[in-house]
Amino acid sequence: MIVTVTPNPALDISYRVEHVGIGASHRVRSVHERAGGKGLNVSRVLHDQGIATLATAPVGGALGDAVRDDLTAAGIEHSLLPVSGPTRRTIAVVADEGTPGEATLFNEPGSHLGEADWRRFRELVAARLDGASVLVCSGSLPPGCTVDSYAELVRDAHARAVLAVVDTAGPALLAAAEAGADVVKPNAAELRETTGHDDPLAGAQQLRERGAAAVVVSLGPDGMLTVTGEGVWRAAPPFAVSGNPTGAGDAAVAALAAGIERQEPWPARLRRAVAWSAAAAAAPVAGELDHRVFRDIADRIEVEHL
Amino acid sequence: MIVTVTPNPALDISYRVEHVGIGASHRVRSVHERAGGKGLNVSRVLHDQGIATLATAPVGGALGDAVRDDLTAAGIEHSLLPVSGPTRRTIAVVADEGTPGEATLFNEPGSHLGEADWRRFRELVAARLDGASVLVCSGSLPPGCTVDSYAELVRDAHARAVLAVVDTAGPALLAAAEAGADVVKPNAAELRETTGHDDPLAGAQQLRERGAAAVVVSLGPDGMLTVTGEGVWRAAPPFAVSGNPTGAGDAAVAALAAGIERQEPWPARLRRAVAWSAAAAAAPVAGELDHRVFRDIADRIEVEHL
Repeated sequence: MIVTVTPNPALDISYRVEHVGIGASHRVRSVHERAGGKGLNVSRVLHDQGIATLATAPVGGALGDAVRDDLTAAGIEHSLLPVSGPTRRTIAVVADEGTPGEATLFNEPGSHLGEADWRRFRELVAARLDGASVLVCSGSLPPGCTVDSYAELVRDAHARAVLAVVDTAGPALLAAAEAGADVVKPNAAELRETTGHDDPLAGAQQLRERGAAAVVVSLGPDGMLTVTGEGVWRAAPPFAVSGNPTGAGDAAVAALAAGIERQEPWPARLRRAVAWSAAAAAAPVAGELDHRVFRDIADRIEVEHL
Repeated sequence: MIVTVTPNPALDISYRVEHVGIGASHRVRSVHERAGGKGLNVSRVLHDQGIATLATAPVGGALGDAVRDDLTAAGIEHSLLPVSGPTRRTIAVVADEGTPGEATLFNEPGSHLGEADWRRFRELVAARLDGASVLVCSGSLPPGCTVDSYAELVRDAHARAVLAVVDTAGPALLAAAEAGADVVKPNAAELRETTGHDDPLAGAQQLRERGAAAVVVSLGPDGMLTVTGEGVWRAAPPFAVSGNPTGAGDAAVAALAAGIERQEPWPARLRRAVAWSAAAAAAPVAGELDHRVFRDIADRIEVEHL
């Protein structure tokens, strides 16, 4: 069982419009709503692949109810903590006239999650870790959380012999590395922002020195660079698939968690991560894979031991 | 009592961002939510001025609950019909770096309002017209409504000796005029779209010929042109106030309804309409008046009998 944590979930709302103009009044042609947030996307990909997963998140208000209802409708097992602060929205505006995937995004900040709420959420997650194999912590922390929040969950996981994967940036990423996270997965920009290194290898090595057992740096269409105690690998797809970057990162994390649970060797984990990531980049919404791209790419991923 | 009808209400959501960019990912700094829709704005202005009003609308889903809660919190008397289709949202994005009032708007279309729902809504409105003085029908009709919907309400009002003000455009405006609406209030663009006339006087005369007793054409910062059985007037503010056009139009309709209820002569009605309209244009959100602008302008409005 892979337990995912989404401390700052959202109701993701997509609008389709004819074209987007600043200062214009847009008639929205179609509206779609989905439970969103990076950990929920990870659970969605795992569920889609038939891998047992449990999604956890604090939720509040009518938008929190909508998140819960959508997860239930999708058949994704969940354990959600009711909190007083309302769940946030994100709005993605996609124009008919424009490059597909070039959405204009408006992300609400999310409600303040106070110390008492965090303590209750941490207890809920810890209770669900008994019997689990992997914990996945994904995305930004909501206002009110300390930067140590993911580090606390990593220690809770290790106390129960559960491995921990963390996908975040900045001080929360550094703290998770120092807590000994088994895998951290920044993208190149997040790694630069967090470590100050322009070179992904140097940045990854710094996070290893801080305490992370393995660092996987996603390089967009160029694949992934991985630094572990067993060596350094570079994995690349046979051709670049651009598109949905949020979905690509979350699918990579889902693949890494699945590979860890199956105790696959690193090259196999990375092949899976690059394949799922490319298939997710080609899908219109985060949490889904384009199965045609997956079949086309799965056997053709090069993994190079540096 | 002035009864307002908003057949396609919305939860109006305002986002403040640093600046707006197409294809960009925006961190929303602040989120505000309000019951929205043109008839609700009219009731808000009337309530703010201490004039008795009742707001009616069909509402559904969690967003409908939010509309109801906001009206209750504002102290605006309301009679809302629960329907199965969820109430829509509008999103207004305002940038810190940019001209105030130049919002980027995304308007959801609204749920289909079927024939049975419309019949129940029409009965609800009719029941509230007993003892009322003026009916105000404002805004677009939701998908599913026939273009005769406002015309039916005008006839229901007249059967109860209630006067009817209609603020809409296109075929629904023509049908309301033919039903003998006492006042119709298109803006210049809506009048051109509806009648094909570039000249507001010619367009207004056409609506009078169709059956409207009086036609008030709002000309933005230039004031209003009014064609009635008693004559033609032009009313103008002493200086142009630009800003919130939705709020300005709704405040003008509120003023016209108030003037009709008090049986004021046309020049007094128009003075009030231009003053409230300018004060609403200067206010940040529709349904509110900038009282400083109102005081500055109220005694200085010129009404010319053409």
